Amino acid sequence: MAGPTSYFDPASADRLDPRTAELVRRRARAMGNAYRLFYRDPLELVRGLGAYVWDRDSTQYLDVYNNVPSAGHAHPRIVAAIAEQAARLNTHTRYLDEATIAYAEDLLGTFPAHLGNVMFTNSGSEANDLALRIAKTATGGQGVIVTRNAYHGVTTEIAAISPSLGGPGSLAPWVRMIDAPAPGVDLGEQTAAAIAGLAAAGIQPAALIVDTIFASDGVFPDAAGLPAAVAAIRAAGGLFIADEVQPGFGRLGRLNSDAGRQVGSLWGFARHGLDPDLVSLGKPMGNGHPVAAVVARRELVDAFATRGRYFATFGGNTVSIAAAQATLDVVRDEGLPEHAAAVGGRLLAALRELDDPRIGAVRGAGLFIGVDLVDTNGRPDEALALDVVNALRQRHILLAASGPDNHTLKIRPPLVFDDTDATRLVTELAAVLKERS
Amino acid sequence: MAGPTSYFDPASADRLDPRTAELVRRRARAMGNAYRLFYRDPLELVRGLGAYVWDRDSTQYLDVYNNVPSAGHAHPRIVAAIAEQAARLNTHTRYLDEATIAYAEDLLGTFPAHLGNVMFTNSGSEANDLALRIAKTATGGQGVIVTRNAYHGVTTEIAAISPSLGGPGSLAPWVRMIDAPAPGVDLGEQTAAAIAGLAAAGIQPAALIVDTIFASDGVFPDAAGLPAAVAAIRAAGGLFIADEVQPGFGRLGRLNSDAGRQVGSLWGFARHGLDPDLVSLGKPMGNGHPVAAVVARRELVDAFATRGRYFATFGGNTVSIAAAQATLDVVRDEGLPEHAAAVGGRLLAALRELDDPRIGAVRGAGLFIGVDLVDTNGRPDEALALDVVNALRQRHILLAASGPDNHTLKIRPPLVFDDTDATRLVTELAAVLKERS
Repeated sequence: MAGPTSYFDPASADRLDPRTAELVRRRARAMGNAYRLFYRDPLELVRGLGAYVWDRDSTQYLDVYNNVPSAGHAHPRIVAAIAEQAARLNTHTRYLDEATIAYAEDLLGTFPAHLGNVMFTNSGSEANDLALRIAKTATGGQGVIVTRNAYHGVTTEIAAISPSLGGPGSLAPWVRMIDAPAPGVDLGEQTAAAIAGLAAAGIQPAALIVDTIFASDGVFPDAAGLPAAVAAIRAAGGLFIADEVQPGFGRLGRLNSDAGRQVGSLWGFARHGLDPDLVSLGKPMGNGHPVAAVVARRELVDAFATRGRYFATFGGNTVSIAAAQATLDVVRDEGLPEHAAAVGGRLLAALRELDDPRIGAVRGAGLFIGVDLVDTNGRPDEALALDVVNALRQRHILLAASGPDNHTLKIRPPLVFDDTDATRLVTELAAVLKERS
Repeated sequence: MAGPTSYFDPASADRLDPRTAELVRRRARAMGNAYRLFYRDPLELVRGLGAYVWDRDSTQYLDVYNNVPSAGHAHPRIVAAIAEQAARLNTHTRYLDEATIAYAEDLLGTFPAHLGNVMFTNSGSEANDLALRIAKTATGGQGVIVTRNAYHGVTTEIAAISPSLGGPGSLAPWVRMIDAPAPGVDLGEQTAAAIAGLAAAGIQPAALIVDTIFASDGVFPDAAGLPAAVAAIRAAGGLFIADEVQPGFGRLGRLNSDAGRQVGSLWGFARHGLDPDLVSLGKPMGNGHPVAAVVARRELVDAFATRGRYFATFGGNTVSIAAAQATLDVVRDEGLPEHAAAVGGRLLAALRELDDPRIGAVRGAGLFIGVDLVDTNGRPDEALALDVVNALRQRHILLAASGPDNHTLKIRPPLVFDDTDATRLVTELAAVLKERS
């Protein structure tokens, strides 16, 4: 989630050029007041290719924000796969379709063997909703443990476990929070305390659910205490759900050097040396096409199946599967995880070399990087982050701020983002900071 | 929802040809045991066009089941719109996009003026989930009233108001049921009783939600008591949500002759002379592409917006909007609602003329028709419906059974279904019944 500071303020519509002002007005009238637009000056985008997008005036922007078109905007191979399958047949999972089965097998081949089943949905929200339904059914529990600024989606059930949406007061009574894995935080201890809190309220735990890059908490690639937290939830009869909607499909870089872990994994949970019970997938799965999934231990799906069948009209339709298969093929054939690891590693180093006291911690893995902006006392500087995000937009670089204090620049471009793009980003970020010194 | 009787029994896999048996085995292994397949002999479909689909052996089937590809399978104009936009840009609602705004305005133009806002989701489940979230936020209530065999979707929240999925025992404690509008049922009286039941439990009502064709309840195009039910829920401070996921976008036929009602409406609620507070859309909205929406009174969206922003990554993405706009254009330009009214009217008459005591009531509007199959005592004959569905599949006609007793043949083909198709359906249905007499 981008912080509220990154959004356009409707009260400032007078400042806009006439065409933009008119679009903003028509949009608010038809789509209502719950939608937000990015930036003080909203952007009208008309085209994309690779890591770039263009506005109506043919101005090119470097996209450092969008982690959905992970293989690059308008990837021709994925576009062709969608077009060809849409022209052939778009139908659902109550008929046999060899391509759907082949994709399910192919996808499961990237997971540890005990994660043996996949079920298809249309969004990460639906995937987390289904994962939690399965967890509650299989455990008989109701309690859920999340991180303090977690975002897992927008269905009623999932919004009620997402404190970043409406704050702690918006959570369901069976939700408990733990801190994100900042230095000094003991995730295992906090999880044990959360379980004890649930027990005191007579609530049996169902699951600990964690975004394995902790994106909305401010991007934390390392979480030493996570295995202890997972052990604690399992000891209490609950399950561990890895939310891979943001980190998944190779964004964190392939772990070639991590001997003894899930070498070659596309998934964030492997970074932490974990074997989840359920995994939710989404955003980049179809490079923008609405497709998502839950991967689960077979016995959990079996337990769920005894309570009812599963069907989602669009979930796993033949066109969504074609998009997903083409995307997975491109991710592998173009070596995007390795590319993300290499470019992301160099970008991380370059950001850390920026000599500016307003840059606090720089954390990241692959092409998912968080850069804290701080004041002279080292405290989160949300106003500066807002200024930097909007100044970069004026310099044709798109990103957003994140984290509980909205002071963390969130860097997660399409994975085709290269060293030239990285240099452009670092150069412009330095220039924007210099303007403000 | 098709009844369980229409599904393949995994225990009978030995009967299948080797290729089908192998696909069924691979599918169960990868996708698990919660998924179902249609028919005693599952179908492997590879192509579709208009109202027809083809299996791997190039056998053509008449599709009388699929209400998603409403403009016809693989409609070239819709396929082209998807392909062109996917090649240009697939992005989300936090940037300005004129086509998205234009579609929102175009869609809202088919609704009564007081329904002034639209918000986009990826599935009918997400649409109903969001509609109910808005209703609960705006009213402060929690109670929901549904019909006895209602199906509204598969998110945790919506599964818990869908008795057709898991029976009354699976419902949330704040749900009450009323009968579907069969002869002799007083919907107004039942709704008043349900409200009283909620009040007795200290639960304030949020909404009455009704599929305006009552598809999973057995297809009821007429519901004389519905206006009284809506008046009752409003008097109690609740809202009326029209679930148009199945009946919407013209399937029930344009109401040219209904002077004084919503003449020209694409929506089922207009049949009943109603103005809903919220409307959920889905299935045919993108002719198979995952796109859905909530249409709402502006003040309800405003109330929701004061409690938080709304964003769904894929919801209203530019490709989904291109699919939806092309579909709406085709529905209008090809006069599909008028066509549905004309062909559906003749089909309804032909079905009623079938001289067979096992055919009970025949109900329908446009191309959404239910045919009850009954035994010699006039009671629901689920076994016969199962036999007929599977025998028609062997004769290359695809439909399913529905309703609480699974004895209602559910006829809802792509809207391009024509008189020749209708004659083929009626002829084969008569032949199948004759074989069993």
